[in-house]
Amino acid sequence: MDEIEMAARKAKEASYRLQSLMQAVRNEALEEIACALQERAGEVVDANQADLREAEGAGLSKVLVKRLRYDRERIEESVRSLRSLQRQEDPIGKVVSCMELDEGLVLERVTCPIGVIGVIFESRPDALVQISSLCLKSGNAVILKGGSEAHRTNRILTDVIVKAVTDLDQRFEGAVQLLSTREEIERLLSQDRYVDLVIPRGSNQLVRYIKEHTKIPVLGHADGICHTYVDQSADLEMALRVCMDAKLQYPAVCNAMETLLVHEYVALSFLPPMAEAYRRAGVELRGDGSARGIVEMEEATEEDWGTEYNDLVLSIRVVPSLDEAIAHINRYGSHHTDAIIASDERNAQRFLEEVDSSSVMWNCSTRFSDGYRYGLGAEVGISTNKTHARGPVGLEGLTIYKYRLSGSGHIVADYSGENARAFTHRKVL
Amino acid sequence: MDEIEMAARKAKEASYRLQSLMQAVRNEALEEIACALQERAGEVVDANQADLREAEGAGLSKVLVKRLRYDRERIEESVRSLRSLQRQEDPIGKVVSCMELDEGLVLERVTCPIGVIGVIFESRPDALVQISSLCLKSGNAVILKGGSEAHRTNRILTDVIVKAVTDLDQRFEGAVQLLSTREEIERLLSQDRYVDLVIPRGSNQLVRYIKEHTKIPVLGHADGICHTYVDQSADLEMALRVCMDAKLQYPAVCNAMETLLVHEYVALSFLPPMAEAYRRAGVELRGDGSARGIVEMEEATEEDWGTEYNDLVLSIRVVPSLDEAIAHINRYGSHHTDAIIASDERNAQRFLEEVDSSSVMWNCSTRFSDGYRYGLGAEVGISTNKTHARGPVGLEGLTIYKYRLSGSGHIVADYSGENARAFTHRKVL
Repeated sequence: MDEIEMAARKAKEASYRLQSLMQAVRNEALEEIACALQERAGEVVDANQADLREAEGAGLSKVLVKRLRYDRERIEESVRSLRSLQRQEDPIGKVVSCMELDEGLVLERVTCPIGVIGVIFESRPDALVQISSLCLKSGNAVILKGGSEAHRTNRILTDVIVKAVTDLDQRFEGAVQLLSTREEIERLLSQDRYVDLVIPRGSNQLVRYIKEHTKIPVLGHADGICHTYVDQSADLEMALRVCMDAKLQYPAVCNAMETLLVHEYVALSFLPPMAEAYRRAGVELRGDGSARGIVEMEEATEEDWGTEYNDLVLSIRVVPSLDEAIAHINRYGSHHTDAIIASDERNAQRFLEEVDSSSVMWNCSTRFSDGYRYGLGAEVGISTNKTHARGPVGLEGLTIYKYRLSGSGHIVADYSGENARAFTHRKVL
Repeated sequence: MDEIEMAARKAKEASYRLQSLMQAVRNEALEEIACALQERAGEVVDANQADLREAEGAGLSKVLVKRLRYDRERIEESVRSLRSLQRQEDPIGKVVSCMELDEGLVLERVTCPIGVIGVIFESRPDALVQISSLCLKSGNAVILKGGSEAHRTNRILTDVIVKAVTDLDQRFEGAVQLLSTREEIERLLSQDRYVDLVIPRGSNQLVRYIKEHTKIPVLGHADGICHTYVDQSADLEMALRVCMDAKLQYPAVCNAMETLLVHEYVALSFLPPMAEAYRRAGVELRGDGSARGIVEMEEATEEDWGTEYNDLVLSIRVVPSLDEAIAHINRYGSHHTDAIIASDERNAQRFLEEVDSSSVMWNCSTRFSDGYRYGLGAEVGISTNKTHARGPVGLEGLTIYKYRLSGSGHIVADYSGENARAFTHRKVL
């Protein structure tokens, strides 16, 4: 048994202890982490400064260096988020349904933690604090693997968390663990005996690598190829505003629009002002033949339709019908977030029903697709999976349920064969 | 693109059409299948007779031959189950939560089909009818692969279903497809681009093989190593009755008891009459040292604790505490179904909380763990997964949800930066 397997097994044992901790203890643990973060802010900032110096020395891009920064202001944000998490409803121990199977034989479905969560993230040290605290709140153990560029910051943050929670209660021993080398990722991904769910937070490449290399369920998304379709019935002024926001409010993120689809009936009146607005904002446009017949722009290739630019680039296609728009999105999209701008309610309903994406939107910007905006509080990520949790995922995605059946000596033999007793199957909740 | 990939793609295209079919159309499809089954019963029985003759000729075991039989009586059972499924509540299109994010900006979470389900099953032809109808009811397309011993029966049943539903509505084209050769399983398991969920129904070996060979989420369980723990506080007469039922009511199934754990305080009074009752029923006992000190029996090896006998064999261990019982179950069990017999409510609660299994039970038989007994109607299987669906799984396990956001031109820019508008996040449902 190597070190990683030992760590995974230790996490599994911890998860068995965590699942029966009272809500008050789990919330207290979050409060202890918040206080420890404030007390040890100096150490954390020093470690982060050292990581930042090394990153700048190694010529890391400005964006990555910015994400790596974890200063006093960000520490205070983490503290606020730890406190807001304490106030959130307990996600575990909830009886979600209850049925009397027969007199005195009662079946309940109760939410419970998943067990051990493996989290693989890049750069942002605040993700370490956020995900650990979401796991602890929901009674899960967590094994973390951060990017090497943040190794000093991650190490001290893990130390802060582990000391804070184990000083409070020894049962947290092993509940939060940090792996340190890149080689350990592969070993972690093979621990399907102990690790119940893997959450990757990082580049599309990272997520794709992880999905390819593990049998453990992976919660997340690789691509965010989001579309906005401007229907023939659209209010074109609204479409213009929403399309600007969807592309430009924050182009580097997964819920930004990458492809604009326009119904041919409105293309002639919509595309010229839209293109002009995008050009002024510095957006490079790439279009199909019809779009290029209306506005001058580069040619979009087959590859463009399946590309997440995460940048000031947009592909544009003119479609002859709502059906074609839906078919394009289901074929080339990444099932993340797609919007229709339309006044015709029937067209909108068809779009919302037939587009197979985790979030579908009508007359608003794809950028709304986010755990905070959706009112979930903190989020563990956005999932494009078709099982378990989909769309922005909060605490609930870190839970599962068990069935609890209580009787007074009930046996199945009484309910079978001749003279079988009938079940009442009376729904209580 | 080979034949299997074509089939999978066709299924995916069908799934896009299915998701917007009205409930009435899906229910009508089930009724058409029921009628067609009755009309073509002669053809079905003939095909089944041919399969049975071949199986008997090839020397298949009596149990397998019995499972393979699909006669007029079983056809009528399928017809009844198709009609009862029509009466079940529509699992898709349900708004499960609704929140106003801001004035005029409303977020709904709506249930929807998963997409394409791959089903791999052995022997029982009624599973083909049952699972296809569950998939159609929930708006999913299905690709079926049955055992070769039932190939004639499966082919005619698929023909009955496909003709019945496509005659009703062309949109069902491609919604139900049957693969015929064993080699196709591997190819099917690699269609993670088109197939969203795999459900294996068959031996532990089959399930384990499938879990090892696919990146598609698998819903099911390999082992059913179920325990009953007789606490020091147990009513021993009740324990005796329940333990007899758990082991003997149907020993060949996944929710039958395989290991009996007894608290040392009651072992001396409980084990002798229990062992006597088991012996009279022909159960072979294997025990640890303490059990063998009380009653003569074979020695249980380390391997016994992790074995699903599915037969008249039972392993017995005497434990010094509730903690040891829980630890034994979490370590050796298969997280399927485990029961405690106890009068002490606190002990029972600890067991129900700390045993990490899909069903946990108090004072009743593990044999209750089943979709029909749990009031779910028909079941697609019993899952020991920690994500998506757990325990006996009915229609709900064939659904997922999407988020639907409707606004009137709302953009994210208004909710960020200085003078940012605040979200109301008002829960409506």
